[in-house]
Amino acid sequence: MEKNQHHYSVIMAGGIGTRFWPMSTQKSPKQFHDVLGTGKTLLQQTFERMKLISDTSRIFVITSMEFTDLVFEQLPDLPVENCIAEPMGMNTAACVAYASFKISQLDENAQLLICPSDHLILNESLFAKNVQKAMSESLKKEGLYTLGIEPTRPDTGYGYIQYIPSSKQVKEVKTFTEKPDFSLAKQFIESGDFLWNSGMFIWKVSDILEALKRYLPDMYRAFENIKSHMNTESEIEEVSKIYPTLQKTSIDKGVLEKCEKVFVLPARFGWSDLGTWLSLFEQSDRDPQRNAVVGEEVKLYNAKGNMIHIEGDRVAVIDGLENFIVVNTDDALLICPLKNDQEVKNYVTNLRLSKADKYI
Amino acid sequence: MEKNQHHYSVIMAGGIGTRFWPMSTQKSPKQFHDVLGTGKTLLQQTFERMKLISDTSRIFVITSMEFTDLVFEQLPDLPVENCIAEPMGMNTAACVAYASFKISQLDENAQLLICPSDHLILNESLFAKNVQKAMSESLKKEGLYTLGIEPTRPDTGYGYIQYIPSSKQVKEVKTFTEKPDFSLAKQFIESGDFLWNSGMFIWKVSDILEALKRYLPDMYRAFENIKSHMNTESEIEEVSKIYPTLQKTSIDKGVLEKCEKVFVLPARFGWSDLGTWLSLFEQSDRDPQRNAVVGEEVKLYNAKGNMIHIEGDRVAVIDGLENFIVVNTDDALLICPLKNDQEVKNYVTNLRLSKADKYI
Repeated sequence: MEKNQHHYSVIMAGGIGTRFWPMSTQKSPKQFHDVLGTGKTLLQQTFERMKLISDTSRIFVITSMEFTDLVFEQLPDLPVENCIAEPMGMNTAACVAYASFKISQLDENAQLLICPSDHLILNESLFAKNVQKAMSESLKKEGLYTLGIEPTRPDTGYGYIQYIPSSKQVKEVKTFTEKPDFSLAKQFIESGDFLWNSGMFIWKVSDILEALKRYLPDMYRAFENIKSHMNTESEIEEVSKIYPTLQKTSIDKGVLEKCEKVFVLPARFGWSDLGTWLSLFEQSDRDPQRNAVVGEEVKLYNAKGNMIHIEGDRVAVIDGLENFIVVNTDDALLICPLKNDQEVKNYVTNLRLSKADKYI
Repeated sequence: MEKNQHHYSVIMAGGIGTRFWPMSTQKSPKQFHDVLGTGKTLLQQTFERMKLISDTSRIFVITSMEFTDLVFEQLPDLPVENCIAEPMGMNTAACVAYASFKISQLDENAQLLICPSDHLILNESLFAKNVQKAMSESLKKEGLYTLGIEPTRPDTGYGYIQYIPSSKQVKEVKTFTEKPDFSLAKQFIESGDFLWNSGMFIWKVSDILEALKRYLPDMYRAFENIKSHMNTESEIEEVSKIYPTLQKTSIDKGVLEKCEKVFVLPARFGWSDLGTWLSLFEQSDRDPQRNAVVGEEVKLYNAKGNMIHIEGDRVAVIDGLENFIVVNTDDALLICPLKNDQEVKNYVTNLRLSKADKYI
């Protein structure tokens, strides 16, 4: 099937989360790992998924300069010019602005799907249908479109989107809320008009540029001034000059929360942001003793309900452990209770404080 | 102090125990590791201890051919000709016979201390005094002398030596017994005339050769036939011919248990054979939460009573673990309850059965 020539996908692959340490490190973050043991890294899975939306020539990956080698290594099909290298990590607003200006110079009628590189989506064809729906909607009605996940539990690890109930498939957004505490999350679920913020956006490039101009005018102007350099040899040099001056904010905070024309499409395609070891555990295949195991040679005795991730050509013998996370890489070993999965980022902070940076 | 020119020490360093896996492996057994985190391997500690008994020129190390490089690397002071390479591991009787024939060719009046390379001795000067006492006793009275450790608990992991009570410091041995069960071990302790078999022996070389001739005549004859090659260029070749034909037995079983002239010197110099992770744990320095930790960078949270051994330049973060063994090497990870320390050899057997030999 010939794909719509104005449909572009932008994969954001510059993140360096610490909640998946020690598998995910500053030098090799989570998106570059086969975290589910499927034989493909999360970035590779995302790239394959984007092929359902856009022709390969219209899939872009935006990442930090230092990760471009990893991107080319993992995505041999990606056109070289479609790897956008940020001079430094500046959060998602700058990332979206850069990709939008660049693509608008190629095609002012472009429609963009912006998505993270490290999420799990189980039902990919339903995902593609939802994206197509939002794409066609965004042509009819000016605005910023997002995919909201129908929540299945009062998760305190996600941001929530409240929509105005209506009979239409695509709803008008009422409010964005930060990660709630448990009782608030329960209220959100019970009310029925809250969705999880998936961080996946769909919009016409002209609409997002208009919104950037309005809500992040400094950032807009900085890119506007150098837009003629986009897709030329001087692009990197010019972008490097403005990048350090840009506001470090997320596209949610910087634009979506302020914008009045935001729409959400409630979706249920089996989604996880794989944000912590526990969420990965929940999405992994498990053995009869409920152990989720990734590793060449892992021998378990009296082990139940563990998340075990052993990298490299290494044997592991684990006896008598219950409901633990065990991660072993060449540089690090992590053993902690599954229920402490939110502590992982604190372990990393403490390593940083004790000047053990080289391990993180 | 000029040491007695007939005092020789023989360090047996050919063992490949599996109870310390994965630190101890077939390619690099326990004696070549700094198991206590002191900065010295057990072999190095033993070699230093032998210098209290013999001049360095009269300290010998007997090991398998494949470990000689490790020996030279760890003991740069050891004279090259004092490293005796067995063509294959054949248990301690062959090992003692080989070293005894070799040394008797150098000095027929030699007195030998034979000892394992992988034991811990805390009070080294008391150890040296005990050895000197046994050496002088063995000059006065023909026989095989052994150091017996005064037991501090009904340990079922050791062999026991029963002696005939007397007022003398050096006692006559009544029986050797294998590892007892717990109730028998308790009886041994209560009776007061049982000692732990330390596997450390002292004798005149002429006495042990006499005993070998009587109790292991085939082995004796095999070495007798090639003794003129000892300490010559043809030694290795000739030894390699006879070695496969030798009886594979321990010096305890093959000689001491049968011999009538065996003596034991009860000793209390702070000894452990460091036979399992638990015994190592008991001999290690511990932090206020009773964790024994060896490793470059180990961060503990809510961890109590663990034996933690992290090799290499690797960070470990361990949270919520109590009374566990955690060992991490380049090739393997072991996590098991401390109370299961006797299971370690079974884990290794199972790895062998599942053809995961390369990890053991």
